[in-house]
Amino acid sequence: MQHYEKDGRLQHVMLSHQFSIKLMEELFDIADHVKGMTRKPNGIEFLKSLLSHKKAMLYFTQPSTRTFLSFLTACQMVGMDTGEVRDPSLSSEYKGESQEDGVRVFSSYFDLIIMRDPKPGFCEYMAYLLDNTGRSVPIMNGGSGKDQHPTQALLDLYTMHRSFQHKGGISKKRYAFVGDLLRGRAVRSSVMLLSQYKDVEMDFVAPS
Amino acid sequence: MQHYEKDGRLQHVMLSHQFSIKLMEELFDIADHVKGMTRKPNGIEFLKSLLSHKKAMLYFTQPSTRTFLSFLTACQMVGMDTGEVRDPSLSSEYKGESQEDGVRVFSSYFDLIIMRDPKPGFCEYMAYLLDNTGRSVPIMNGGSGKDQHPTQALLDLYTMHRSFQHKGGISKKRYAFVGDLLRGRAVRSSVMLLSQYKDVEMDFVAPS
Amino acid sequence: MQHYEKDGRLQHVMLSHQFSIKLMEELFDIADHVKGMTRKPNGIEFLKSLLSHKKAMLYFTQPSTRTFLSFLTACQMVGMDTGEVRDPSLSSEYKGESQEDGVRVFSSYFDLIIMRDPKPGFCEYMAYLLDNTGRSVPIMNGGSGKDQHPTQALLDLYTMHRSFQHKGGISKKRYAFVGDLLRGRAVRSSVMLLSQYKDVEMDFVAPS
Repeated sequence: MQHYEKDGRLQHVMLSHQFSIKLMEELFDIADHVKGMTRKPNGIEFLKSLLSHKKAMLYFTQPSTRTFLSFLTACQMVGMDTGEVRDPSLSSEYKGESQEDGVRVFSSYFDLIIMRDPKPGFCEYMAYLLDNTGRSVPIMNGGSGKDQHPTQALLDLYTMHRSFQHKGGISKKRYAFVGDLLRGRAVRSSVMLLSQYKDVEMDFVAPS
Repeated sequence: MQHYEKDGRLQHVMLSHQFSIKLMEELFDIADHVKGMTRKPNGIEFLKSLLSHKKAMLYFTQPSTRTFLSFLTACQMVGMDTGEVRDPSLSSEYKGESQEDGVRVFSSYFDLIIMRDPKPGFCEYMAYLLDNTGRSVPIMNGGSGKDQHPTQALLDLYTMHRSFQHKGGISKKRYAFVGDLLRGRAVRSSVMLLSQYKDVEMDFVAPS
Repeated sequence: MQHYEKDGRLQHVMLSHQFSIKLMEELFDIADHVKGMTRKPNGIEFLKSLLSHKKAMLYFTQPSTRTFLSFLTACQMVGMDTGEVRDPSLSSEYKGESQEDGVRVFSSYFDLIIMRDPKPGFCEYMAYLLDNTGRSVPIMNGGSGKDQHPTQALLDLYTMHRSFQHKGGISKKRYAFVGDLLRGRAVRSSVMLLSQYKDVEMDFVAPS
């Protein structure tokens, strides 16, 4: 996964493969701390000062109110300004532009892109394209085609972490995944994360 | 109206019945003060610090640019971050969710809901539902079905208060309501507020 | 152009005719400074404090993602709160309002209007109307009908200024304009600005 890294840190969040147990445990610790800070006004003010000099584009060409609001309020919690894009075209006036051109132009106004698009691989393709311009902007995959939904998967693992923190942790347990699994990109991403833990059994229940 | 109160204060703003003359006069005093403060940059900065640790959801499944902008800019004046919901569904992917589920999930991201919905009683129903979860979020009714529009009514009364402040106040006057009154939920709410004042006469002029 | 001025300063930004070489050079200097400041967190924080007591309405009844995002992020850079209007009607409930009424009502919530509308002259008409009310609000023309797009033209001239700053400046050069020029309101505005410079030659290449 080195091509989504830069100086030993994540440059883009694309696939759940990028998250080792070590990195996840670090993120869970940070999440626990942030959770505590959001209960006090001065904690909230401190969090809002962290990234108040940065701007995020919410590029949601595949709509989802829930995912949109959770990313929007996450940006607001760390003080980022946000802009929303629902229509992939640059302009109503001129025809014949590519969606790639649109993202490239819009990216010049922002420091971070959160991208949700129905086309499989589009998110990874844009990360590759932007890396090869003079000004690469980090992209977070907020749901890409049918393939991956890594941030939803991190949230699932964090929920398991909290549920089992006084019960021996995530390892050595049996998990059932129930639902329309074939189209479930979040489930696919969660399974990839969960399979790293020791002695985990997984059962899948889905309509045939 | 005790079921919309909590510890002797309003928990939800649902109906104009909730506003006594005493409470209205308090609000008019605060509004006068705020009006003065918005004329000076340091007054504006002070107001923006008041609720900068809170977030409001503008749940506008019945569109109205005027009402939306007045609530949006009111939130901005006291420093609140805002998120807008126009589409009641949780997600474009999964079908069969109820609108109630959507509001309940979205409410977990916010500290306040401003709700405008075309269905009569929906706003009150959601207040009831959220009160019975672990995390009740205050709801302000920004226009509900054909029944009520309490904040618009408060604004009408504040206009009367200012117009008559050197002319003996709101009491002992004759008021005419003109327009399409049958569908006028704001008028209905205003009449309920106005009828509390002494020696008020009201005339209604509407097409038959 | 005195009718778009107030106390010797621009009140509205309507036409590229309003920008002399002297004013453009001042703006280019400011833009160079701002560009430098945005590279450091404390520079960004300073810029965000400049207009944090002001609110801008982005009145985009003619959609354009690129123009919208560039104005939105410009407002955010100087700390302004923003509200977006895409639907010109005041309300979904009442019919028969004029678009002028809508703008006039919405303008009361904001300190600045950035306006993009498909009707030629609408932007100038609204500036005239608001100037004749008790509370004039500055309007920036973000694209008006087929006539003008002055801020896009300023950006074009700034690009020329930077490109030629070590090559003798904008004057004494030959420029080619290529594209669908008949509908190109930005080109028309740029030509008006460029024609003020000395010894400038312009060639126009367009489909017949």
